[in-house]
Amino acid sequence: MEFTASQIAAFIDGKIIGDENAIITGVSPIESCEPGHLSFIAQERFSGFIKSAKCSVLIVSERLLTETNYPVTIIAVEDAYLSFQVLMNLYKEMQGRRSGIEQGAVFHETSSVGENVYVGAFTCVSENVKIGDESQIYPHVYIGKNVKIGKNCIIYSGVRIYDYCVVGDDCVIHSNTVIGSDGFGFQPTKDGYQKIPQLGNVVLGDHVEIGSNCSIDRGTIGSTIIGKGTKIDNLIQIAHNVKIGENNVIAAQAGIAGSTIIGDWNQIGGQVGVVGHIQIGNQVKIQAQSGVNSSAKDGEVLYGSPAINASEYRRNYVHFRNFTEIVKRISKLEENSKNIDDRE
Amino acid sequence: MEFTASQIAAFIDGKIIGDENAIITGVSPIESCEPGHLSFIAQERFSGFIKSAKCSVLIVSERLLTETNYPVTIIAVEDAYLSFQVLMNLYKEMQGRRSGIEQGAVFHETSSVGENVYVGAFTCVSENVKIGDESQIYPHVYIGKNVKIGKNCIIYSGVRIYDYCVVGDDCVIHSNTVIGSDGFGFQPTKDGYQKIPQLGNVVLGDHVEIGSNCSIDRGTIGSTIIGKGTKIDNLIQIAHNVKIGENNVIAAQAGIAGSTIIGDWNQIGGQVGVVGHIQIGNQVKIQAQSGVNSSAKDGEVLYGSPAINASEYRRNYVHFRNFTEIVKRISKLEENSKNIDDRE
Amino acid sequence: MEFTASQIAAFIDGKIIGDENAIITGVSPIESCEPGHLSFIAQERFSGFIKSAKCSVLIVSERLLTETNYPVTIIAVEDAYLSFQVLMNLYKEMQGRRSGIEQGAVFHETSSVGENVYVGAFTCVSENVKIGDESQIYPHVYIGKNVKIGKNCIIYSGVRIYDYCVVGDDCVIHSNTVIGSDGFGFQPTKDGYQKIPQLGNVVLGDHVEIGSNCSIDRGTIGSTIIGKGTKIDNLIQIAHNVKIGENNVIAAQAGIAGSTIIGDWNQIGGQVGVVGHIQIGNQVKIQAQSGVNSSAKDGEVLYGSPAINASEYRRNYVHFRNFTEIVKRISKLEENSKNIDDRE
Repeated sequence: MEFTASQIAAFIDGKIIGDENAIITGVSPIESCEPGHLSFIAQERFSGFIKSAKCSVLIVSERLLTETNYPVTIIAVEDAYLSFQVLMNLYKEMQGRRSGIEQGAVFHETSSVGENVYVGAFTCVSENVKIGDESQIYPHVYIGKNVKIGKNCIIYSGVRIYDYCVVGDDCVIHSNTVIGSDGFGFQPTKDGYQKIPQLGNVVLGDHVEIGSNCSIDRGTIGSTIIGKGTKIDNLIQIAHNVKIGENNVIAAQAGIAGSTIIGDWNQIGGQVGVVGHIQIGNQVKIQAQSGVNSSAKDGEVLYGSPAINASEYRRNYVHFRNFTEIVKRISKLEENSKNIDDRE
Repeated sequence: MEFTASQIAAFIDGKIIGDENAIITGVSPIESCEPGHLSFIAQERFSGFIKSAKCSVLIVSERLLTETNYPVTIIAVEDAYLSFQVLMNLYKEMQGRRSGIEQGAVFHETSSVGENVYVGAFTCVSENVKIGDESQIYPHVYIGKNVKIGKNCIIYSGVRIYDYCVVGDDCVIHSNTVIGSDGFGFQPTKDGYQKIPQLGNVVLGDHVEIGSNCSIDRGTIGSTIIGKGTKIDNLIQIAHNVKIGENNVIAAQAGIAGSTIIGDWNQIGGQVGVVGHIQIGNQVKIQAQSGVNSSAKDGEVLYGSPAINASEYRRNYVHFRNFTEIVKRISKLEENSKNIDDRE
Repeated sequence: MEFTASQIAAFIDGKIIGDENAIITGVSPIESCEPGHLSFIAQERFSGFIKSAKCSVLIVSERLLTETNYPVTIIAVEDAYLSFQVLMNLYKEMQGRRSGIEQGAVFHETSSVGENVYVGAFTCVSENVKIGDESQIYPHVYIGKNVKIGKNCIIYSGVRIYDYCVVGDDCVIHSNTVIGSDGFGFQPTKDGYQKIPQLGNVVLGDHVEIGSNCSIDRGTIGSTIIGKGTKIDNLIQIAHNVKIGENNVIAAQAGIAGSTIIGDWNQIGGQVGVVGHIQIGNQVKIQAQSGVNSSAKDGEVLYGSPAINASEYRRNYVHFRNFTEIVKRISKLEENSKNIDDRE
């Protein structure tokens, strides 16, 4: 796609300084901008790039502009970051959406799809599945029996949704994520571990986004639940019967063990582990790689394995880094003490 | 499916207190039970729910029953947990199994399947593959050449099994797990890393269960082995030439590096890392997130990164939590010591 | 395949001691060698196996041979390890490669493939895709629009490559890895997190190998880049706009957060986490499970979470292991100090 500076300025209500017919055909980050591309500067610390950037059109926050002429075409706006977001969303929409049922998709006769749905080649839709209006199911997706998928979802290639799981409206699930595999439940016996049947399901609220290669296990009985607006990164493990509230963000490779309950608006860092059967309140922050093994109250900030208050962890870790020095101080004290004893 | 209280009681040899015609159509955990559902209470701490639960039928351990009338229909049994397990297994069996070869599955002419096998749409079966009686292979599975799969296995959608791998009887492999991808073996040269061909395979014993999104690499030469009855959770890495014995349980996101040998009946926690070329004995417990970098004897309990004896780790970690206080104590001692020196 | 000792010796320019007609049909590691198999001994510490190994033919480094007769047929070479590598590579090549377009693969009419390309059943190739000569794309692969794949690549079953991503020449990508899923970018608002469109792509240099079940996210704008010759193990997370240089090795389950820049020839251990927006130089070694949260210079060796100099970490960890003892020493000093105070 091709746009002129004046078309772009019109979308975001900006003021052009320079050539309004400058043409852009792509978008780049400011550090690696190239001719024919659009970029933006919203922060003081990048303002040096205004004169040196090699792109053709640059959206800049007004307060960073001090001159009347620039080597590239400038579009001045109040907040360049927000304006750029608006453009990116527009661009995404312009790329269009897929629709129609591609040849090679397999539907059970008892399943039903809403209006304007896309189903890609080699996707399998089992018995009694319902797919809502405007949803897009990419190729190679497996949808088990009695699954319900809401409206306006995007399910990327290779996602597996086991029987009886429920996906809300406006959800996005990235490639190769598995929803509803069996919880890890076995009873030890003398002869080995015996499987505990996993008869529950997974329920995703509306506006949930899940990255690629995640595993969200079904409940043993009852549901594993991910609340409205919660966003989950890649390679994440959510075990059986976990309940996650609304508007949480969980970074890549984190894992939540069985039956743990998590509130709203929490931030869980990458590679964090949370043990089973505990409760995490609301607006809790858990630093990357932490191991949380007891319940956390609203607003706590946690770090370490096992996780403790984050400031406390950092302060103690400073001492850990000086441990050799600290032990020397103790040895010196012992030496002194011995000398005093000797003198007495 | 629909059952009456008396049908349920018959399955588990229970005694009904209340309406023997009460009907249940589903199953719930006791905390979120609803009308028309069945639940159970096996522990003292849940006995408060006997009077308040909103389900229609409740299986309860006899010793927890003190009255003659209850608001819901009760089925009294010796051990409600075990009885509930029996029912769940029955229920699972009643749901039936898939069979037959679905249209769209692709078989090489040299491959063979046993009796009553299910092969789903878009599954690829390569040259010289053998699939045992009663096994169920879901859609979108890839099976490389010369692979052997035993009897009564369930291989879920999206599993990939590379050439020459062997799966025992009664195994379950969940979606998107990869069996037999190349081990991570490269030789450094001046010009970059050169690949070491990975010519071995993976051998899974009988009754092995593997969760979703796991990676089990093939041996460089020889086999990567997972012994009989070992259960592996989701998102787990098993590197080339690892040998794992019988009846181990390995929790989600753990990783075992190359050529390590693991005995029987070990419990490996979530996100644990075990380095390559070491030996773990039998009945070892490794706490979640630990990093094991040396061999472990039978019965050890390990924690920390690097992992040490778990009680020792916990005791030392208490001191770590008090480190700021401890350093203050040292400073005070130094102050005292200085005063004494000054006085002399 | 079947070979005689003399055929093998000819491939690697070795000298036979024993029966030159001994036949081998397979290859085993020395510890579990069996009749009819070939193995090798290159190190002093395995030389005890020369007399006890049950294989039929054994390649041995000359310097380890002290006798004139052995129970098995020996092939003496200068460096048995290198000779064995040569054979393994030959063997791999003999197994042949796949070619041709299998029935059931779906191509958009605007896509094009080079010469001698293999495309497996149920693979989807979208609009404007280009696949270079000699590349092998296994079954069940999804290739989004405008993707470019170089020459001589192997893309295993179940790989997903999103729109506009670029794969260099001689790359290998193992099963169920996802290239180009959306970066994890959301803006908090009062009503929940709003998605930031992810419009960039992923670019893999030549000779890149990526294991199974990895997630490599596309750039928000611009590219996520993995440089020439870099090798990535299984279950690894590479976030949006990460730039990785040449000839790095990254072990299983490591994760690199957004916009971090990594140089050349680094070694990143298993389960390592690297935070976003930092720089790692060249020839840095990061020990397994470390959490790197600040930039690292060339040649650093890091360990711990947060990661510090590895020797320092190990030294301090020794003190951590003795922490209870150290606290006892402090208590004793306090006792002494109190006694002195009392005496005065």
